[in-house]
Amino acid sequence: MRERLLSTIRSALAEGETEGLREALEEARIQEILEVFDELPEEGQHLLLTLLPKDKAAQVFSELSAELQAEHLKTLPPWRVQEILEELSLDDLADALQAVKEEDPELARRLKAYLDPKTQAEVEELTQYEEDEAGGLMTPEYVAVRASMTVEEVLRFLRRAAPDAETIYYLYVVDEEGRLIGVLSLRDLIVADPKTRVKEIMNPDVVYVRTDTDQEEVARLMADYDFTVLPVVDEWGRLAGIVTIDDVVDVLEEEATEDIHKLAAVDVPDLVYSEAGPLRLWLARLRWLVILILTGMVTSSILQGFASVLEAVTALAFYLPVLLGTGGNTGNQSATLIIRALATRDLEPRDWRRILLKEALVGSLLGGSLALLLVGKVALDGHTALLPVVGLALFLLVLFANLVGAMLPLGLRRLGVDPALVSNPLIATLSDVLGLLIYLLVARLILNL
Amino acid sequence: MRERLLSTIRSALAEGETEGLREALEEARIQEILEVFDELPEEGQHLLLTLLPKDKAAQVFSELSAELQAEHLKTLPPWRVQEILEELSLDDLADALQAVKEEDPELARRLKAYLDPKTQAEVEELTQYEEDEAGGLMTPEYVAVRASMTVEEVLRFLRRAAPDAETIYYLYVVDEEGRLIGVLSLRDLIVADPKTRVKEIMNPDVVYVRTDTDQEEVARLMADYDFTVLPVVDEWGRLAGIVTIDDVVDVLEEEATEDIHKLAAVDVPDLVYSEAGPLRLWLARLRWLVILILTGMVTSSILQGFASVLEAVTALAFYLPVLLGTGGNTGNQSATLIIRALATRDLEPRDWRRILLKEALVGSLLGGSLALLLVGKVALDGHTALLPVVGLALFLLVLFANLVGAMLPLGLRRLGVDPALVSNPLIATLSDVLGLLIYLLVARLILNL
Repeated sequence: MRERLLSTIRSALAEGETEGLREALEEARIQEILEVFDELPEEGQHLLLTLLPKDKAAQVFSELSAELQAEHLKTLPPWRVQEILEELSLDDLADALQAVKEEDPELARRLKAYLDPKTQAEVEELTQYEEDEAGGLMTPEYVAVRASMTVEEVLRFLRRAAPDAETIYYLYVVDEEGRLIGVLSLRDLIVADPKTRVKEIMNPDVVYVRTDTDQEEVARLMADYDFTVLPVVDEWGRLAGIVTIDDVVDVLEEEATEDIHKLAAVDVPDLVYSEAGPLRLWLARLRWLVILILTGMVTSSILQGFASVLEAVTALAFYLPVLLGTGGNTGNQSATLIIRALATRDLEPRDWRRILLKEALVGSLLGGSLALLLVGKVALDGHTALLPVVGLALFLLVLFANLVGAMLPLGLRRLGVDPALVSNPLIATLSDVLGLLIYLLVARLILNL
Repeated sequence: MRERLLSTIRSALAEGETEGLREALEEARIQEILEVFDELPEEGQHLLLTLLPKDKAAQVFSELSAELQAEHLKTLPPWRVQEILEELSLDDLADALQAVKEEDPELARRLKAYLDPKTQAEVEELTQYEEDEAGGLMTPEYVAVRASMTVEEVLRFLRRAAPDAETIYYLYVVDEEGRLIGVLSLRDLIVADPKTRVKEIMNPDVVYVRTDTDQEEVARLMADYDFTVLPVVDEWGRLAGIVTIDDVVDVLEEEATEDIHKLAAVDVPDLVYSEAGPLRLWLARLRWLVILILTGMVTSSILQGFASVLEAVTALAFYLPVLLGTGGNTGNQSATLIIRALATRDLEPRDWRRILLKEALVGSLLGGSLALLLVGKVALDGHTALLPVVGLALFLLVLFANLVGAMLPLGLRRLGVDPALVSNPLIATLSDVLGLLIYLLVARLILNL
């Protein structure tokens, strides 16, 4: 089916004959359309967005990245743009218009004219919040009821109001000033006696966030406590909107991507690989590589300071790369474990004493095991004089690199800095400097140079 | 409020007087209890689980990790264990019993005896599926209706059935054989005329997964297409259960943690840092470190092969660490960008030609910029004879390490191997070997050694 759809699209593109495709799209299931859409070249995506029935077109459109949305809004026929804008939920609509506005304020103004005045006002209000706060994630399409209403009245109200609400599965109870005082699930409503009053069945213990709560905190709250919807209140406790889990899943994915990028010293927010050109990638990666190479240059100064040691025993240089590499690898492991455990709230900075102890133990065990292996290689190579130097240096380096890797993220978090700043390349570079000092000092000491 | 609750708990623990705490817990909001719970020592958590009203106790319990759940089920008083088991949803219950069974099969048998026969049978069936497939994620607590029923009949049916269903926000329509033929949201139902038949308002275009669909695929489907519930069918198309978004959020988090751990060469599934002892951590980390140090030993053999070059120009060794480190850092960046883009479906392996071109360009730009910097340092150090050697070697190494980092994950994915196998330490180690060969060959060539 998927293959047939793809080939229908290809032949429509080639021959310019779209009637068959239009029929195929009407029959196709949304799951198939979404799968196929990702694989199409830009003109194919454009054709699909034009020919699809409007509800499916809006659904496909809402899954696109902000950049792609802006692109299509520029090029699609006006009647189709209007249909899509009308079908989008308010928060998706606000995000799309925001993306267009950043590139082309004039187009954004023209697009807003398609909307009815009420929607215009609501979108206007939504775009006032910071994009990375609860206010920027929320939609105002919630259902609010009063505590004194009966179940029957609420159901009648829902029959009228429902088509406008993104989710009616939770109803929020507000007082005269619009302050949030309770929550009620649609399920509670369905199973209750029609004559019951809302205040008798509502849950006054509502979990909520504020419009200025950071989106990461919202995401963590919903992920940890399995909420699918969370109400958002303003500074006076008045209900302002709701955040739904689908938006939060996107936030969690973005945050994980950013953390993973940071671990590799690519510290650029919202970098989408497929959409970034070579120059953007070069700049995104250059900054940290420059900081790291400047730090790494310390190693060449250290080596020049110890030139006499190296000249006396050239064989010392043979084990330099594997020694420094192993230190970096160990430090990377402990840093990554701690950074991820901090991100998922498995650890807190105040656990540092316990972590220090654990990592001292793990580091010693790892250092001992790995030193045994490397000493074996030194013995095989016949450099018996270097056995104690290489063995001791590797043990100490693994132990200290492991501790630095574990403690650095904890220290940063304590200082209020994002621990993911400790990238793997940073640890590798620091461990190079540390390892070199340990190796050369141990050599000078043991070999009496 | 949170502070007051904490201090009440502390004094209850110290004085053994629990009446005040019991009252405080009844008043406390669930959000506060959850926040406080994470910060308590084990005996404090135990006390809270004993004193909390049973619905709150079950809610707190369901948020714990499987290991902690098993721990508490062993030590809590039997009446409380029974209450918690009764309040848990079926899929959470099955997971908890599975965790207990792995540690203590006898206790698992005793706990099952607390359940009524119907629940026992349902839990039995759920535990037959693989934990990492849709069958292991789903709960059988869905609501199924027939196409011929009227809206009124469905609503009456829901009033009776709802208390047993984990979610009634989507109703699934099945035929005589139990095969899934449509879906209907509770919202559609509420806004429809009571006399309408289900078949007139149901959506026959249902997106579903099979019991043996991999959990990662289920998660991706729900995350990408914003589903909050997804039906699961067996091999004959019969409805077997539903997967809800809260379980999927957990799956996405676990997968991200595993990917991040793999990037640091810690390749152990389900490793939770705070729960792993030093020996477990040592073993989890040793395997890859051993593979890497054995690979890294190749560098010492290479250096010994080029001993004459090193002895002739000791200054070559000065730039070895910074050169190799920079190669590793660059390779790590490109590998991480590609691995994450593959994981989030931003890229597909068939895009390799485009990626190769892009990374060749980015690698050349980075190589050129960084070579200029390092050559400056060499000039400052006064080793003018080494200028072309270090500059050319760094340029080539950055270019090739960048390509290896980008292409290796793509190649693995094409071979059907998880691209996250390409860890940062692996890239650093491979780049050490590659960099060393480039550096020494360039030196031999240019310096005529």
